[in-house]
Amino acid sequence: MGATPPLSPLAPAAFPDLPVIAGVSFATAAAGVRYQNRTDVLLVSLAPGTAMAGAFTRSTTRSAAVLDCQTKIGGDPAPGAAIIVNSGNANAFTGRRGAESVQAVTNAVSEKLGVPVARVFSSSTGVIGEPLPHERIIDSLDDLTAALSPDAIATAARAIMTTDTFPKGASETVVIDGQAVHIAGIAKGSGMIAPDMATMLVYIFTDAAMDQAVLQDMVSALNRTTFNCITVDSDTSTSDTLLVAATGGSGIRVTENNVGFMEALRRVMLDLAHQVVRDGEGATKFVEISVTGAASDAEAHIHAKAIANSPLIKTAIAGEDPNWGRVVMAVGKSGARADRDTLAIWFGDMQVARDGFVSPDYDEARAAAYMKNQNLIIHVDLGLGGGTARVWTCDLTHGYIDINADYRS
Amino acid sequence: MGATPPLSPLAPAAFPDLPVIAGVSFATAAAGVRYQNRTDVLLVSLAPGTAMAGAFTRSTTRSAAVLDCQTKIGGDPAPGAAIIVNSGNANAFTGRRGAESVQAVTNAVSEKLGVPVARVFSSSTGVIGEPLPHERIIDSLDDLTAALSPDAIATAARAIMTTDTFPKGASETVVIDGQAVHIAGIAKGSGMIAPDMATMLVYIFTDAAMDQAVLQDMVSALNRTTFNCITVDSDTSTSDTLLVAATGGSGIRVTENNVGFMEALRRVMLDLAHQVVRDGEGATKFVEISVTGAASDAEAHIHAKAIANSPLIKTAIAGEDPNWGRVVMAVGKSGARADRDTLAIWFGDMQVARDGFVSPDYDEARAAAYMKNQNLIIHVDLGLGGGTARVWTCDLTHGYIDINADYRS
Repeated sequence: MGATPPLSPLAPAAFPDLPVIAGVSFATAAAGVRYQNRTDVLLVSLAPGTAMAGAFTRSTTRSAAVLDCQTKIGGDPAPGAAIIVNSGNANAFTGRRGAESVQAVTNAVSEKLGVPVARVFSSSTGVIGEPLPHERIIDSLDDLTAALSPDAIATAARAIMTTDTFPKGASETVVIDGQAVHIAGIAKGSGMIAPDMATMLVYIFTDAAMDQAVLQDMVSALNRTTFNCITVDSDTSTSDTLLVAATGGSGIRVTENNVGFMEALRRVMLDLAHQVVRDGEGATKFVEISVTGAASDAEAHIHAKAIANSPLIKTAIAGEDPNWGRVVMAVGKSGARADRDTLAIWFGDMQVARDGFVSPDYDEARAAAYMKNQNLIIHVDLGLGGGTARVWTCDLTHGYIDINADYRS
Repeated sequence: MGATPPLSPLAPAAFPDLPVIAGVSFATAAAGVRYQNRTDVLLVSLAPGTAMAGAFTRSTTRSAAVLDCQTKIGGDPAPGAAIIVNSGNANAFTGRRGAESVQAVTNAVSEKLGVPVARVFSSSTGVIGEPLPHERIIDSLDDLTAALSPDAIATAARAIMTTDTFPKGASETVVIDGQAVHIAGIAKGSGMIAPDMATMLVYIFTDAAMDQAVLQDMVSALNRTTFNCITVDSDTSTSDTLLVAATGGSGIRVTENNVGFMEALRRVMLDLAHQVVRDGEGATKFVEISVTGAASDAEAHIHAKAIANSPLIKTAIAGEDPNWGRVVMAVGKSGARADRDTLAIWFGDMQVARDGFVSPDYDEARAAAYMKNQNLIIHVDLGLGGGTARVWTCDLTHGYIDINADYRS
């Protein structure tokens, strides 16, 4: 990777204050996996009884760590669990050696923390196709174990970064039966973002007590309208991993009918998903694509993704050009049903097109002024049915090319 | 559009010498449709008996001119035909007014040349969503008709350009029964290139005598492995049009069994398709993606398109980085079948990966040196079956963003 890119102009003012989650502790180390002089390994220890749910990339070339997590995710919560993450090397497309690295690392964590290896989840993020120097991670485990602390989540968020320009965190507190239940999560992700199941590396912790199956159903459902609705560059990672851990440390049981908790978890997931887009490689604009009136929700999602992934739309947004003709183009190419003569388009609350033609109220100067905003909403109504979708993306700028033309140099 | 972009480094040395096609004459004019002081209208007159075949965009928001061509394409060749093309305005998403413009222009050409309006084909290319000032085109018809000449195909190729940096032409001559039959074609296209049926504006002329149905079958079949196998930016135009005219001027009849003619027509179509990629907006590299060993030809095509459209691969190529891990990523996300452990990748004739791991012979310095070539071949073998595909694309550079961030300014 070349020089560190400058902080995204869409970054939040500061990393949020995240609550301590009873039953979770964190430690980070600078193991030199690829980068020197920065933390690149994260160890998370989870108390006995912690239920784990997850969602993973559907890539057919997914990484050894993802394959390993997928076999373990439904297991018995009784003995607790651990998560070990490294940045700098994705351990993807590394064949048999990749699987051996995952085994070596998870075995070492299992011995060190006294949890069964079937409860040790691992993730790797960084360059694809290079063998993981897993002995460096194993060598750092003594220091990591000694350093475990319940209030180190902010340093944890930094240790998992690659091309990210800011660490990503979000939290919610829900009151259930008069008692506070907390949710706190961290994420990394900036490029190769077009999740097709989960996204990037995301770890969310709650002190709610939950059945594994209830937690998994909730996470799978929420994933569809949060992480699966963002895209930076249409490229789907080999390593996308979302893990959600419910420790039970609050003593409060959450069931599938707890709408308040589910809504809070949704807000944490959506907040982290939006932060990934806000740190999209080279991004200068945060864009919501809202599609209504499609023949179905699925077709609305196809239209929204076609708009969000169009390089011509993304470069027009970068150039602050209200080029709504390119939105027509993207709807036309998406493959989902559309009728040119019932199509309407809004930029913000300005209708720019309707009934297959430019809107009679269209004012190019006003539209151009709107495009100068950092947060933009493009709304398309297809006039066909009740299908809706929302997708979030960013613009395509010179910064994206700077970052990706010399990622490995 | 901003300042004229510099000539593509992938441009051919010169516009080729194209043969005169008996039965075809051309004229161009500077009608001021959008640009000042450059030719922007092309009129083509085609002799009685000319068979016309075509292929068109499958966009659901296709332009009024495309819709009109599609209704006319199978008609009786007896009265001859005409083609009228303008650059600068696509007359797409212009509703009822768009259709009225097409009618006005084709009616005027019909009267001027004395061919039925059902035999007047029109195309428009340029900005989407603005009404076409069709009276400027009609006003230029007297001059155009007076100027018609059989050897003006080179000026015709210039008149249809928009963001193109060079005019595109190709020809072949086939000897049938001891007599020469000629094929000559021109094309425009540079951005919004991911044809889903035909591409951009392409006009090919031959003096062969052909039945309309034979010509159409040949064009449809060849289109699948030529224009439908190129992509600049994954964005499919609303205006893609390929028209092929067989005038019969050579007096030589070509039937569906004439392999020599079909092969010559394929070479002209592929040459023009490659020239469109070589003029891809901002392109500095011409890249062939070759996929073998897929479960089917259709799945090979899906993999090849996923690789060719990946912004991460295209920026790596721009940066001359042999980042084959991103090829693994693109295969993984494509949706078509793949097995990580049977996947092999070559850059040129260098095997960089096999059996799900980096190749034992991989030499990063040699791979980096290969990436400095202007013409690159990326070959992926999936090790699953006999499916193959070839797709052509270009890199993604700062030039693409420069051109598209201020296209309308």
